[in-house]
Amino acid sequence: MKKLLNDPANAVADSLAGFALAHADIIQVHHDPAYVTRVGGATTGKVGLVSGGGAGHEPLHTGFVGDGMLDVAVPGAVFTSPTPDQILPALQAADGGAGVLAIVKNYTGDVLNFDLAVELAETEGLDVATVLVNDDVAVEDSTYTAGRRGVAGTLCVEKIAGAAAQQGGDLADVTGVAHRVVDNVRSMGVAVTACTVPHVGAPSFDLPGDQLEIGIGIHGEPGRRRVKAVPADEVTQMLLDPVADDLELSAGERVLLFVNGMGGTPASELYVVYGRARRLLEQRGVTVARSLVGSYVTSLEMQGASVTVLRLDDELAALWDAPVHTAALRW
Amino acid sequence: MKKLLNDPANAVADSLAGFALAHADIIQVHHDPAYVTRVGGATTGKVGLVSGGGAGHEPLHTGFVGDGMLDVAVPGAVFTSPTPDQILPALQAADGGAGVLAIVKNYTGDVLNFDLAVELAETEGLDVATVLVNDDVAVEDSTYTAGRRGVAGTLCVEKIAGAAAQQGGDLADVTGVAHRVVDNVRSMGVAVTACTVPHVGAPSFDLPGDQLEIGIGIHGEPGRRRVKAVPADEVTQMLLDPVADDLELSAGERVLLFVNGMGGTPASELYVVYGRARRLLEQRGVTVARSLVGSYVTSLEMQGASVTVLRLDDELAALWDAPVHTAALRW
Repeated sequence: MKKLLNDPANAVADSLAGFALAHADIIQVHHDPAYVTRVGGATTGKVGLVSGGGAGHEPLHTGFVGDGMLDVAVPGAVFTSPTPDQILPALQAADGGAGVLAIVKNYTGDVLNFDLAVELAETEGLDVATVLVNDDVAVEDSTYTAGRRGVAGTLCVEKIAGAAAQQGGDLADVTGVAHRVVDNVRSMGVAVTACTVPHVGAPSFDLPGDQLEIGIGIHGEPGRRRVKAVPADEVTQMLLDPVADDLELSAGERVLLFVNGMGGTPASELYVVYGRARRLLEQRGVTVARSLVGSYVTSLEMQGASVTVLRLDDELAALWDAPVHTAALRW
Repeated sequence: MKKLLNDPANAVADSLAGFALAHADIIQVHHDPAYVTRVGGATTGKVGLVSGGGAGHEPLHTGFVGDGMLDVAVPGAVFTSPTPDQILPALQAADGGAGVLAIVKNYTGDVLNFDLAVELAETEGLDVATVLVNDDVAVEDSTYTAGRRGVAGTLCVEKIAGAAAQQGGDLADVTGVAHRVVDNVRSMGVAVTACTVPHVGAPSFDLPGDQLEIGIGIHGEPGRRRVKAVPADEVTQMLLDPVADDLELSAGERVLLFVNGMGGTPASELYVVYGRARRLLEQRGVTVARSLVGSYVTSLEMQGASVTVLRLDDELAALWDAPVHTAALRW
């Protein structure tokens, strides 16, 4: 294993320390237990937004803490859920007196640990709502998951709910808008290469030289099938069609198209996928009204990409457009 | 070779087509010959900024076209200089009547082709200045280069000269500020893995499983030496020390620290490098006053990173802070 890391056991802590120094104008990192807050902490009167999960998907979630998005992010070890005693202070740190929304990707460990922490927070008087993100249409009941997995669509939930909170929505409003994003966002990904968890030191799965894994999970969980490497246009169609079909997109609808890199794929390739996905949507009579292309929800150094489509209405589009100021997303 | 591409011969054109669709609010792509302009074209009365070079380093340069940075980017084939008949219309497209500054990375092919195009543009009455970027301290006279190579420091030149032009500086002012950045910026990189040029189909160089190439060029050109993989802290010191020494940094000075990913390295590792580089600068009594961490000047899917340090004064810091609105850099 060759990586730009020191002791693999300290990979997350080392990275968080550098992150804290680089973005001291936006975030603050707390250690033991580890969580990341906005500089200045919770905003009085604003609904607090918390998200988290295993590390290794950066910039998700830590890179999305800031104005217009998350108040607190709580990273576990690589590909490992944060613990309840880490999540509890994270929830408390997000509390500005208007309640807290926890945005949780649907993995068994995350759900269990967030549930426990939320219960503890509630016994201490905190008002907490939870939304589960399960946008991956590839498979049901994969490794670590009952039901569908939460993947790149999580960014859309965090951005849009974050804007709703920033604009003064109450906990019911913000939770409602988050659920509406979950109901209207779908994703599917492909792995070109595997990735290596630092403290394991060997690739998470085996992907022979000429094969792609269609429907890969963001921890390298199995997808739908393996195919011999084919041109990007064909790969993209294998991702876009299931996403659009599951959403039951009709001609005349407007969407956000988000092409996400898995960490090791260069931007030039993501734009090839984006171009094809957009043409396929347009062939269905669907208008791509908003776009995002980049490596935002990653799997360490895995090469590959995912395609996310979010059905938009005027309110979701306006919340997407609202200003955001985080380490990884800014407009 | 497994990549998310179609016909490797069309890799650049396919990627530009997707890029054009994704960022139609910021840029416009021209084909035959290929160059990228701001939507709406040149700004009357503003100095025009043009940069370019081989593709494969995205988001450099195409991702930096927009308000506060470049007016036109001109991409060649992968790792291949754009041709003079591509550069000439690019220079003309940037002309708003106040002259044009061409920002050229110091590679023999780029220098030759830009020089020829500038000569042709001048015979047609255009006022063009050129600045050569040669920030890589690793080696002199490498593959493709006489003198030092231009690498990630190019981003600093484009950002700061772009701000000077946006604020109404004349051609002499903007050129002067660009030269001042070149005089004060140095970089050095490391390769963890090689990369594969699409139309070649095999890795550009051979880097055995346990080795790192210290001082790598952004086309995989040889560096200073190969070392057995060591922890990130040691690698970072092998990059930061030559950079800081070449700059002759003294205690009390302020710098911008830019840790750049080569395309295939995840953000989490870049922050480990950033943290160490920052501590090393602080040990020299140098203040890191501005920071940038991300994959901005890449070598396709190469894993690795580079460290860039720019000595700041009040004017350079203010120009760095000035608003920028491009596909890849925005604040």
